[in-house]
Amino acid sequence: MNASQTISLTHCGPEGAVVMEDQVAVEEPLEIRLDGHPVAVVMRTPGHDEELAAGFLVTEGIVSRVSQIRKIEPRPEENRVLVFLEDSVEVDLGRLTRHLFTGSSCGLCGKATLEAIFTDFPPIERGIRVSDEVLCSLPKKLRAAQGTFESTGGLHAAGIFTPDGELLIIREDIGRHNAVDKVIGHALLNDIDLTFTLLLVSGRLSFEIMQKALAGRIPALAAISAPSSLAVEFARKSGQLLVGFLRPPTWNRYT
Amino acid sequence: MNASQTISLTHCGPEGAVVMEDQVAVEEPLEIRLDGHPVAVVMRTPGHDEELAAGFLVTEGIVSRVSQIRKIEPRPEENRVLVFLEDSVEVDLGRLTRHLFTGSSCGLCGKATLEAIFTDFPPIERGIRVSDEVLCSLPKKLRAAQGTFESTGGLHAAGIFTPDGELLIIREDIGRHNAVDKVIGHALLNDIDLTFTLLLVSGRLSFEIMQKALAGRIPALAAISAPSSLAVEFARKSGQLLVGFLRPPTWNRYT
Repeated sequence: MNASQTISLTHCGPEGAVVMEDQVAVEEPLEIRLDGHPVAVVMRTPGHDEELAAGFLVTEGIVSRVSQIRKIEPRPEENRVLVFLEDSVEVDLGRLTRHLFTGSSCGLCGKATLEAIFTDFPPIERGIRVSDEVLCSLPKKLRAAQGTFESTGGLHAAGIFTPDGELLIIREDIGRHNAVDKVIGHALLNDIDLTFTLLLVSGRLSFEIMQKALAGRIPALAAISAPSSLAVEFARKSGQLLVGFLRPPTWNRYT
Repeated sequence: MNASQTISLTHCGPEGAVVMEDQVAVEEPLEIRLDGHPVAVVMRTPGHDEELAAGFLVTEGIVSRVSQIRKIEPRPEENRVLVFLEDSVEVDLGRLTRHLFTGSSCGLCGKATLEAIFTDFPPIERGIRVSDEVLCSLPKKLRAAQGTFESTGGLHAAGIFTPDGELLIIREDIGRHNAVDKVIGHALLNDIDLTFTLLLVSGRLSFEIMQKALAGRIPALAAISAPSSLAVEFARKSGQLLVGFLRPPTWNRYT
């Protein structure tokens, strides 16, 4: 399974049209099964399916700890990943459905959404300090480690850094959420403590990325591009550091 | 409901930190109800909720024609939109669920996914011709019509053009899929024939965007950025024109 694939195309311009080959980012569905029951199909770039499954299940709150997972069996040739829980663990398979199909009688709003989330994932109590110098060094490090983007221009990247600016883990995916699920999943599966780390994403920061980071207990987030209104509101309540438009030598701090 | 919102932030750089105000793109959930039943919650930028609902229901195949919809009642203050069907129409509310939670026994792959889709949405039989000059004029027109992106840097745009390069409709949203649902929904609600138009998106082209365009019977797509592998495969089977990296004076044609 490769993250990119060679295809033929016609490159056009003032000098005429030339048939050539180029790399595109691979996009394929992945079905996540929990004890035999399909719980989700996500469109993802193949690779690190085990991490994607672990990250997804924890950051969506379907399992509360990675230790509840007994075994993860990727079956890339079927575009499936089989997850098996410890015997004593019971999860509510209706949970995901409830996230998508809400029937609450109160008005649905960003505020209500946030409050429901903070019940499951408590706010961060202890933040981290990242120096200006370290912060400004991160985009270049992320880009340097981004293998597939260069060749396809089509992948989102997520990287987890220490407060000293060391890149612990990077993943690329056609889906922004998947890249974040993969780095968090990697940390969970490898017992890497995220409580003193920063998550940098190559694109924008939305509400759902904030939620995933909070579920992973990540206290600081930065993005090369813009945050959404709800991402900012989220960070102000979650206690997470939020930096946007990280384009050295300048950046915006929203919290 | 505004597409952008003013927030305070700290702009940092070599010259120090300055507290200032800036615009961020608004992100709020929207619950789509069909005859009283919640069918989906999407994170969207408020505005044109009626178009979003119509576009979503048709492009996801939940209703097969917009004429099956009797009334759409946006309730922006509740972040809800109520859709009512004609009396004679029955839809399978389990459909969306099936899309997300597949239990098929065959291997799940891009190929199977594509085949299932072409059963619902037949390939395009008659394409359109767009001259090189017109094609190269589109990105500038889209950007010029993008009001909110300039102020927030945080919105995706989708625009529908005639083969002569006239912009028929543009919508911006924090979600790429929503921007496409809104332009298609607008066309459906206003009886605009899309069978001789081109859809231009400000970002990348994924499988799901291709599907939505096909459901809207749009024969040609272009993107400022990269297509995914499955988007290319889709276009080669759907009969749609697919242009990527539309960055005048050059572009790539994938079909």
